[in-house]
Amino acid sequence: MEKTHDFENLILRPIARVRTPYKDGFGIPRQGSLLKDSEGVIQFEPRFRNPGYIRGLEQYSHLWLIWGFSDHPLPYYRATVRPPHLGGNEKVGVFASRSPHRPNPIGMTCVRLLSITYENGIPMIRIGGVDMMDGSPVYDMKPYIPYSDCFPDSLSGYADSRRSLLHVTVSEEQMKRIPEEKQACLMELLELDPRPSYQKDGKEYGMRYDGFEIRFSVKEDQLFIKEILASKSE
Amino acid sequence: MEKTHDFENLILRPIARVRTPYKDGFGIPRQGSLLKDSEGVIQFEPRFRNPGYIRGLEQYSHLWLIWGFSDHPLPYYRATVRPPHLGGNEKVGVFASRSPHRPNPIGMTCVRLLSITYENGIPMIRIGGVDMMDGSPVYDMKPYIPYSDCFPDSLSGYADSRRSLLHVTVSEEQMKRIPEEKQACLMELLELDPRPSYQKDGKEYGMRYDGFEIRFSVKEDQLFIKEILASKSE
Repeated sequence: MEKTHDFENLILRPIARVRTPYKDGFGIPRQGSLLKDSEGVIQFEPRFRNPGYIRGLEQYSHLWLIWGFSDHPLPYYRATVRPPHLGGNEKVGVFASRSPHRPNPIGMTCVRLLSITYENGIPMIRIGGVDMMDGSPVYDMKPYIPYSDCFPDSLSGYADSRRSLLHVTVSEEQMKRIPEEKQACLMELLELDPRPSYQKDGKEYGMRYDGFEIRFSVKEDQLFIKEILASKSE
Repeated sequence: MEKTHDFENLILRPIARVRTPYKDGFGIPRQGSLLKDSEGVIQFEPRFRNPGYIRGLEQYSHLWLIWGFSDHPLPYYRATVRPPHLGGNEKVGVFASRSPHRPNPIGMTCVRLLSITYENGIPMIRIGGVDMMDGSPVYDMKPYIPYSDCFPDSLSGYADSRRSLLHVTVSEEQMKRIPEEKQACLMELLELDPRPSYQKDGKEYGMRYDGFEIRFSVKEDQLFIKEILASKSE
């Protein structure tokens, strides 16, 4: 056991995992709050399952999660990145972006606190607005405090530009294959354009979503769902 | 060199240090944004001094810093903490608090971006609203993006309760000892009550602030500055 933390090589160990509908990296919304219907569950690691750790949490509506970009495991980064919102054409500094390809691969996401329930005394925290891959490690959870976290008059550069949504087309027959309660979230996800930044019109994409495989293509601002299949690998 | 990140034992290495007026832990405002006049500077570590890393940052008004609570170096925490705002009488879960005594000792602070200048090609980022000790390690810097970070309708529990400010009394003679441009920030800092949570009326406190030693006592909601001295140890 270390006697003090070494802040030059600070070791973070997961306090929890987040369970989400996203089984692979492709298709994850770029910021969770864009996707209001996207739900997840926080599962604490065994040593943090004492309800004392979250005493008083129910007074908050929103939480911060600090988590690891475990779907981008390589310690690879450059000084600049090409954000997908700019069509991949413009370079910005990695510290002027929320890109996962950063020197210390940690993300922060504000999620909505939906409910806290206990199963055999173990807290289960249901959250909304998740943007991380299923099983991502969570290193810290903090309450969202408006006076220190909320700056409505803040200015943001390229990230602020209103993104144009795609129009999603799907046949009734295909849509019936996915349970009704999952349909709204899937539509939102597709409207936000889940393709990587160097997309080409016409190409067919596959995306896993909560037990389903969604096949689609995009032409200009239209996204066509070709097929919805029950995913085999889960 | 590791080939991939180990997310079970994720090692963070500082990308920068933050220079602030706070030379010791005592007296640091609990959340930086409470203290609008409190300025600091981000100094990148040598390998991140390429201006490319912050290309486009000037488009933002606010930044997130993820940093280490290096003034609380012991790997010591409990399930619950006693937040100072509740007079130290009420226990809340550590994950329902912003306490520095947490399993992974990382803090997040939203600061205002005041200016970016270059000295010999090295970026110097001046920021406002700092709440960390001088020299604290910074592990990540991200732009503040309103659509994912700003939730004006969020609810927060105890942290939201309007804190009552102290009335600060100081003689003109004492006040003259501190440069005029530092006076407003010092007053704000003292109004916020920099004492530890188990304070006792009448006790005399000393606080270092930007090259000065401030001696004061508090009785009920009145703070009396006894003496302002140039600090010896800097």
